[in-house]
Amino acid sequence: MPLTPEQQAQIDAARARPNQTLRAVAPGLEARLYQATPVLDHGFVRVVDYMGDDAAIVQAARVSYGAGTRKARDDAGLIRYLMRHWHSTPFEMCEIKLHVKLPIFVARQWIRHRTANVNEYSARYSVMDREFYIPAPEHLAAQAATNRQGRGEALEGEEAAEVLRLLREDAARCYEDYERMLNQTIDGRVLDPARKGLARELARMNLTQNIYTQWYWKTDLHNLFHFLRLRADPHAQHEIRVYAEAICDIVRDWVPLAWAAFEEYRLHGAQFSRTGMACLRRMLAGERVTQENSGMSPGEWREFRAALDPEGRLP
Amino acid sequence: MPLTPEQQAQIDAARARPNQTLRAVAPGLEARLYQATPVLDHGFVRVVDYMGDDAAIVQAARVSYGAGTRKARDDAGLIRYLMRHWHSTPFEMCEIKLHVKLPIFVARQWIRHRTANVNEYSARYSVMDREFYIPAPEHLAAQAATNRQGRGEALEGEEAAEVLRLLREDAARCYEDYERMLNQTIDGRVLDPARKGLARELARMNLTQNIYTQWYWKTDLHNLFHFLRLRADPHAQHEIRVYAEAICDIVRDWVPLAWAAFEEYRLHGAQFSRTGMACLRRMLAGERVTQENSGMSPGEWREFRAALDPEGRLP
Amino acid sequence: MPLTPEQQAQIDAARARPNQTLRAVAPGLEARLYQATPVLDHGFVRVVDYMGDDAAIVQAARVSYGAGTRKARDDAGLIRYLMRHWHSTPFEMCEIKLHVKLPIFVARQWIRHRTANVNEYSARYSVMDREFYIPAPEHLAAQAATNRQGRGEALEGEEAAEVLRLLREDAARCYEDYERMLNQTIDGRVLDPARKGLARELARMNLTQNIYTQWYWKTDLHNLFHFLRLRADPHAQHEIRVYAEAICDIVRDWVPLAWAAFEEYRLHGAQFSRTGMACLRRMLAGERVTQENSGMSPGEWREFRAALDPEGRLP
Amino acid sequence: MPLTPEQQAQIDAARARPNQTLRAVAPGLEARLYQATPVLDHGFVRVVDYMGDDAAIVQAARVSYGAGTRKARDDAGLIRYLMRHWHSTPFEMCEIKLHVKLPIFVARQWIRHRTANVNEYSARYSVMDREFYIPAPEHLAAQAATNRQGRGEALEGEEAAEVLRLLREDAARCYEDYERMLNQTIDGRVLDPARKGLARELARMNLTQNIYTQWYWKTDLHNLFHFLRLRADPHAQHEIRVYAEAICDIVRDWVPLAWAAFEEYRLHGAQFSRTGMACLRRMLAGERVTQENSGMSPGEWREFRAALDPEGRLP
Repeated sequence: MPLTPEQQAQIDAARARPNQTLRAVAPGLEARLYQATPVLDHGFVRVVDYMGDDAAIVQAARVSYGAGTRKARDDAGLIRYLMRHWHSTPFEMCEIKLHVKLPIFVARQWIRHRTANVNEYSARYSVMDREFYIPAPEHLAAQAATNRQGRGEALEGEEAAEVLRLLREDAARCYEDYERMLNQTIDGRVLDPARKGLARELARMNLTQNIYTQWYWKTDLHNLFHFLRLRADPHAQHEIRVYAEAICDIVRDWVPLAWAAFEEYRLHGAQFSRTGMACLRRMLAGERVTQENSGMSPGEWREFRAALDPEGRLP
Repeated sequence: MPLTPEQQAQIDAARARPNQTLRAVAPGLEARLYQATPVLDHGFVRVVDYMGDDAAIVQAARVSYGAGTRKARDDAGLIRYLMRHWHSTPFEMCEIKLHVKLPIFVARQWIRHRTANVNEYSARYSVMDREFYIPAPEHLAAQAATNRQGRGEALEGEEAAEVLRLLREDAARCYEDYERMLNQTIDGRVLDPARKGLARELARMNLTQNIYTQWYWKTDLHNLFHFLRLRADPHAQHEIRVYAEAICDIVRDWVPLAWAAFEEYRLHGAQFSRTGMACLRRMLAGERVTQENSGMSPGEWREFRAALDPEGRLP
Repeated sequence: MPLTPEQQAQIDAARARPNQTLRAVAPGLEARLYQATPVLDHGFVRVVDYMGDDAAIVQAARVSYGAGTRKARDDAGLIRYLMRHWHSTPFEMCEIKLHVKLPIFVARQWIRHRTANVNEYSARYSVMDREFYIPAPEHLAAQAATNRQGRGEALEGEEAAEVLRLLREDAARCYEDYERMLNQTIDGRVLDPARKGLARELARMNLTQNIYTQWYWKTDLHNLFHFLRLRADPHAQHEIRVYAEAICDIVRDWVPLAWAAFEEYRLHGAQFSRTGMACLRRMLAGERVTQENSGMSPGEWREFRAALDPEGRLP
Repeated sequence: MPLTPEQQAQIDAARARPNQTLRAVAPGLEARLYQATPVLDHGFVRVVDYMGDDAAIVQAARVSYGAGTRKARDDAGLIRYLMRHWHSTPFEMCEIKLHVKLPIFVARQWIRHRTANVNEYSARYSVMDREFYIPAPEHLAAQAATNRQGRGEALEGEEAAEVLRLLREDAARCYEDYERMLNQTIDGRVLDPARKGLARELARMNLTQNIYTQWYWKTDLHNLFHFLRLRADPHAQHEIRVYAEAICDIVRDWVPLAWAAFEEYRLHGAQFSRTGMACLRRMLAGERVTQENSGMSPGEWREFRAALDPEGRLP
């Protein structure tokens, strides 16, 4: 249960008070505003605020292009053009603010995207809640044999059971000892009056990295697309990808035209190297190109074939 | 007249269509939205969109501080605390998008603030309008004698008259020749069918730097305060300062608590060096400190005295 | 002549004083250091400082990948891998500082790249030099008929002659009036003691946008590649492209392995949309695909064909 | 022991190979290059590369100010002027690259400074080393009673002993279970052939946050000063402050003039609000100002007195 009853009541209250505004409004986001989409076992993503819509992208582009472009293209066509030609500044005119609850090892990956504004729950200041990420059995993946960074099949049987047990026990014990070192409970009752209690900024170091933290994270649409391109990718770690996928749904509801262009030109597009383009041209001219005569390394050839023929239909 | 009748009609139309939203609303900005504040002779600033209000700053800070801080301080006190202690991330949670019309030499200063999103009218793509900044007589300042970067008294008499004449004539002639090189008028009628017309991306180089351009400029409140601190400062060039002052009025209406804290701790505060603090302590202990025994250079001493005693009341 | 004799003497002096260092050294850049590559009629680019080399990229990547990756790949292969998979942070570990002299209308495009450090010559503080960009006749391009942002053929005959004359005359007159308004010459001699002279920060607005300015511009290799990808592109304006091309030569001498990977995967690669990939697969399966049955707009189909078959060899 | 013998040998080898360069050289940093300064129990900071020196700051400033400023001020005076007036861009012209080994809870604070380039050791890719931060007894601070974010006196006696025991045991047990889940040892020997071993990217979540990670961290001098101002501050958490202090020593050796200006105007300066300035003027005029008649809150008054009179000498 990612949300407490108190939090749900706050959300309901916020949603019960519509205001009037002269700003652009995105109906698809209004329907979602404040509501939490569950992610992993205790996490969530929810939209807390936003600015702009598809029309704001178009409007910014038309400022740049001036009178010349007016009416020359419809909005969808203009947005597709901007995406195709990497004109990023009009997409920067839209902004979104998310409230995210996520495990610390995921937060450490996420924060590497520097072009965002962040306010994170401070474990110097407050006591962390007792919530840990424990993978569902089907996501308890083995180390990939061929790829040092990847996952293999899910663990099974006794090995899986032991891993789950260790993760649960270690997280729980570390948290209990954290509380013991703090010498206080959440409601502030002191456990042992003879003790001073360790500073929170020190005690937190005893917590495992699957404990949940939360933050407000605000970014513009261009940088959000960059984030999604990297983190909704099949090579991203599952535990951050599920957040990225939840955000994809949000963006689709927010700016449907921009989302469609992003899918067309980024998520489901492909790129090729100079050597790859040369191979492609030979193939189109009827030549049989193999890894040996491609000029590519085996790894690169494998990636090239996968991009060209993901379902293995070509000869 | 900074706005065309067509633009004013668009503004009126936009203001006639209120929408419902569940987002935070800043009433002071709603009253301003889309409307242009005139700046200089043909420029303006207007708010095109915004996100967040004073409560959004408080909300972000409370995420960071967690349950510990709840109710401990009221909103105004918390915002003052954040400003005083340079906690910048909560202020980054508010965002504003402005439409600005400004001379190119001002735009060149402005763009040096890198943490903003910009869409500028493109003179590669479209023809520039025939509008130039010509200073009002009282702003036709002489070069300062003592400060290489500053302004002295206003020019007068024949010198002032000649400067105004030169500025007007050169801008006008360059613009006429720009049109002549383009071989077209604004409405697209070709002047001379025997000519091809120079590319717009080249012809624009013939324009003087007081021609007006325009852009959408979007930034967060923390970075906007940084901009205002530098550009609403008395040492900033008058022609950018008037834009900064117009934006100050906007921010006051948008986030009145944050604005009050900004005035208190930034705009009207002062800072002192280690040497300055030592002098201050000696003065408070009753010692008579002069430039000679201050350990400061004459210039630094002058700045120190001006900060301490702007009206020259101290002995 | 972009450099004054005084500047050339400073360069020669700087090059005559080698120092010892324990840092990584890039021999190809040492050979170039401080020396100016002429660009356009009065501009230049020169390297003033740098940090890192190909080995620094590899070293940073190996910190990330830890012991696991050691010896698994040679340096060139690792750098190609990083470039192919958009691992940008190792390229950020190299830094370069350039001194550039360039026309103001080019500087205005260039500065839009925000992830760089800039110190520009200040026309508030100092008097601008009397140097303007006047295009060579072969670059005096007409406005493209089909593309609002592009160039057509060069102007010819009387039209070309008149354009050159107007550009020269307007720049010269505006500069003379600038000097007249300042009431001083470069060496500080006052022309007319009865005049105060207009403040430099105001007088500069009278200058045309082909006047040369100069700046120190410092950026990391990842962001430099991004700049080069956009500005060394055939669609970039000629006047900035020649600077980008001069920088390409510098990068090739600095980090030859990274440069080769950049050429392979960025400069001479291509990317396709989801629809483009579907068309490609149909073509490889032997189907005849035309614009009509491609699912693309005419413009997009034209771009698709140009990427696939730049020399028009395919049926 | 922060460095392995293998690492020390690499450092000695790197220091044994001086190269010639035409770049600016900072002798104080050359003497330090590659060598590790120990921080905390297993951490370190070392300079891996740098660009620029005090003269580079001056040079960049003189580009901005042009001929006007030449010789007008000596270098130290110019650098002091730049620092005093918040002219940040010349300081951005210097760059430094550090290799840092630090506990993860410190890394999480550090990474919040976004204007830097980072390559961190990847626990997705490689196995983490078995090294944890355990505070020295004198840094085992109690939670402050008055300040939710601060530290009080050190814990003592049995409470201290138990905290140290818990920190050690929990870190050790979590690491052992991490290894057990991975089913491999550092040298790659598989422990139990019947097991697949959990993916590294998952197993890492079981580690406590005092485990050491390492990264290359590169930033410019302006942003480094900002980092140091916040993190070398007495209010910063001890465990990051010791890193900041080690970096302060590095900066002092690198750019001694800039460092002196930073100490004078930032580290040991003070700033006052509008209300604080009003109080100051009243005090200088001989009035007795107390919290009650100051217009400040008790907390703000306490800060004001502490800035003015850190040693409690004034009446």
